[in-house]
Amino acid sequence: MSHPFPKIAVVGSGALGLYYGIRLALGGAQVRFLLRGDLAAVRARGSLLLHVEGARQELRPVQAFASPEEIGPVDLVLVAIKTTAGAILPGLLPPLLDTRTAILTVQNGLGADEFLAERFGGERILGGLAFIANNRIGPGEVFCYHPGSLTIGEFAGPPGERARSLADQFQAAGVKTRVAGNLASARWHKLVWNIPFNGLTIAAGGIATDRVCADPLLAEEARALMREVQAGAAALGHPITDEFLRQQFEVTPPMGAYQPSSLVDFLAGREVEIEAIWGEPRRRAAAAGAAVPRLTLLHALLRRIAHKSVSS
Amino acid sequence: MSHPFPKIAVVGSGALGLYYGIRLALGGAQVRFLLRGDLAAVRARGSLLLHVEGARQELRPVQAFASPEEIGPVDLVLVAIKTTAGAILPGLLPPLLDTRTAILTVQNGLGADEFLAERFGGERILGGLAFIANNRIGPGEVFCYHPGSLTIGEFAGPPGERARSLADQFQAAGVKTRVAGNLASARWHKLVWNIPFNGLTIAAGGIATDRVCADPLLAEEARALMREVQAGAAALGHPITDEFLRQQFEVTPPMGAYQPSSLVDFLAGREVEIEAIWGEPRRRAAAAGAAVPRLTLLHALLRRIAHKSVSS
Repeated sequence: MSHPFPKIAVVGSGALGLYYGIRLALGGAQVRFLLRGDLAAVRARGSLLLHVEGARQELRPVQAFASPEEIGPVDLVLVAIKTTAGAILPGLLPPLLDTRTAILTVQNGLGADEFLAERFGGERILGGLAFIANNRIGPGEVFCYHPGSLTIGEFAGPPGERARSLADQFQAAGVKTRVAGNLASARWHKLVWNIPFNGLTIAAGGIATDRVCADPLLAEEARALMREVQAGAAALGHPITDEFLRQQFEVTPPMGAYQPSSLVDFLAGREVEIEAIWGEPRRRAAAAGAAVPRLTLLHALLRRIAHKSVSS
Repeated sequence: MSHPFPKIAVVGSGALGLYYGIRLALGGAQVRFLLRGDLAAVRARGSLLLHVEGARQELRPVQAFASPEEIGPVDLVLVAIKTTAGAILPGLLPPLLDTRTAILTVQNGLGADEFLAERFGGERILGGLAFIANNRIGPGEVFCYHPGSLTIGEFAGPPGERARSLADQFQAAGVKTRVAGNLASARWHKLVWNIPFNGLTIAAGGIATDRVCADPLLAEEARALMREVQAGAAALGHPITDEFLRQQFEVTPPMGAYQPSSLVDFLAGREVEIEAIWGEPRRRAAAAGAAVPRLTLLHALLRRIAHKSVSS
């Protein structure tokens, strides 16, 4: 098959960037990875490793680079760094861009799309939402527990041929992918789960989702936070149904002792994506006139508990 | 002077019970202390010790007892145990009571007055609010940083001769005391400070009040929680002025790195008075129709973070 995006740069060699980059490369694209700390180890081994669905897949040879200048212009930049590191992107991306280069930013929460659109033009930007459970288990090595799916959308308007062909390329590479009609709406829908569960598991002292669901008061707070996200989204023109809220809660108990990515970061002493997941949604919802008292309190607490850049 | 309550039993030999008991005893009343763990040490030394305002005061001899039966009926029972231990009182108090015995319960938050009123009759019950900073520093030994003041009120109605004469007796013993016209209103007024500051200092990760005030988002959450307490109190018929809220916030920054009693308990691994300070006010405010979303979330989080009896 043809590859609508034959040359791809992956910025961010954590679990997400490795997973999608390896998939696309094994699918036939020329994928160039920008690496930092893992570069020497990856070059020494000569490959990237993906463990998924009981199998070990190896990408060899690997195109691993230390700087965007060595990579040069590509058709697609896949941005898969934490939102907390977003400030490095304006300095990092320009060598990767020609006039037609698209940027797909697979980042959590709200704000990353706009941040890149302001600097590189909204027409370049596609947003991605990863519904996946995976971990980086070593340099250039990722273990995927559940491949889940990827949702992509256009930042600047409804999706057209570009988004559909990118989705097709992901799909052909083994990534279940759907195209969202409205990217912002898709991001708010994802927050219905992330805001309560990523937040309460940290704020309640570092507990997994099963303990939140089993505690009647915390479970009710999770539902109340979902309703605040719904109210914020509605005020911004993105209605979310009650049925969606109900379903997002109901899928959680069967997950067992699941640790959301933010809790994993918190417990590992890494920076948590406070502003993308709680701060920016809180600000946008409040600015649109929605009442989000629980989200506001949760954000203020998390910022103090888990945001390393808050001065102590 | 005469002592309207010549025979007094003190139940609870923590900082509060020791402080008021020693004061009243040095003021001339016969004060009998019910002791448990500290009994042997206190009897061996033969005294109780109070450090206050640069001086060391000794109460010798001390009437220290192991059981309420040994104490027998008194004129006043001063209850100064934590609300979390309240369940022992129905078994403990009967030997101390004759038909006229008054019970003054100096406990935090809401619920202790009603609990005792239901079991021993509302007409016996006086409630006390201690505005004081002190610590038990050893068996039968208390260090008082700031004697502050005591507010007392009648549970069953407006204060009369009994409350005034008890206040006079405290006052004569060196305890600045005022009589509240409405005990429930006084308790809600005290919660205006305790609910935000005792709670946020724990929920934000164990920080002193200065860090709450210096964090713009947490400071705003403290003010928002004060407004929820105000709304709850108003719905229950206890209006609190905006000026009172403003003043309760303004006194806090000058306190410096103050650790509220609940934070001290939390950091020491002791049980925190979750239900008295957050749970019962939340329930009463919600039942009266007040919107208390932040209080509800804060209660649910604290219950998980700090309540030892929540199953893990």
